[in-house]
Amino acid sequence: MEKNNSSLLEQQKFMKLAIAEARQAKILDEVPIGAIVVHNGQVIGRGHNMREKFQDVTYHAEMLAIMEACANMGSWRLEDCDLYVTLEPCIMCSGAIINARIKNVYYGAADPKAGAVDSLYHLLNDSRLNHQVNVYSGILGDECSQMLKNFFREIRRRRKEARRKNRTNL
Amino acid sequence: MEKNNSSLLEQQKFMKLAIAEARQAKILDEVPIGAIVVHNGQVIGRGHNMREKFQDVTYHAEMLAIMEACANMGSWRLEDCDLYVTLEPCIMCSGAIINARIKNVYYGAADPKAGAVDSLYHLLNDSRLNHQVNVYSGILGDECSQMLKNFFREIRRRRKEARRKNRTNL
Repeated sequence: MEKNNSSLLEQQKFMKLAIAEARQAKILDEVPIGAIVVHNGQVIGRGHNMREKFQDVTYHAEMLAIMEACANMGSWRLEDCDLYVTLEPCIMCSGAIINARIKNVYYGAADPKAGAVDSLYHLLNDSRLNHQVNVYSGILGDECSQMLKNFFREIRRRRKEARRKNRTNL
Repeated sequence: MEKNNSSLLEQQKFMKLAIAEARQAKILDEVPIGAIVVHNGQVIGRGHNMREKFQDVTYHAEMLAIMEACANMGSWRLEDCDLYVTLEPCIMCSGAIINARIKNVYYGAADPKAGAVDSLYHLLNDSRLNHQVNVYSGILGDECSQMLKNFFREIRRRRKEARRKNRTNL
């Protein structure tokens, strides 16, 4: 985690709200990822992954939180805003974060396969682009990571159970 | 431009539809960028830049075309689909293209400042990701590029005119 202006307690407070969003995704049987956008200490955008429910590839938690924040701010520029997200953003969401000129991004768990902030790329800190973002990683990282692990373990368990039932019915 | 299965005439036919979308953006005083998504020779998604009108940072031409295509296909997976866009996609749109598993991307003009397909990155051909995209550049490139140049020339002319009027009124 890098040096940061906001206190650790504040970061954890907002990450807990992002985790609450992720739980909403889990209820829908979606991969549990949640995000919020904060401006002057107020939550102005919330989102949780709803890709499967709406069969829309753009319905990532961050995108939905950013869209709501734009609507609430009446502006596509979110210059003094912070984004909290339970999982390291992918390429698409990193692009939206840059385009919106978000100031600080706080994420929980790393995503070694598709993360574009630290894992595969460092898109939020490319000096060739007209905006760079401060990045803080590992905020409640264990909790965020455990939620995803539990979700995928449950998926595997259900699949195994379904295969077992299929075999029994043959 | 790389070797390609579809004929040059077909590529131009679809790029003209993307250009027609870009003209719709121009009518709204938006940066004229247009995109379409094609499946089995049929247009299943259209979009033009509407970022200013809706003050939504995600309202790029490609995103809107992809969202419409997902709705029409009833799926977030656009595996056998092609995307035509008048300008080289940015990071956000490149991410959406990868996430949607679009097969081929045809673009018109290059974007040296923010293009993430060839100019700043080669995001659509990253072997670490679970999907790669065939890229064909320069389709009606001059026409796509000229439309953007004309738009920005007109913006500069209007600004100059406004400054002149302001000086006169002082």
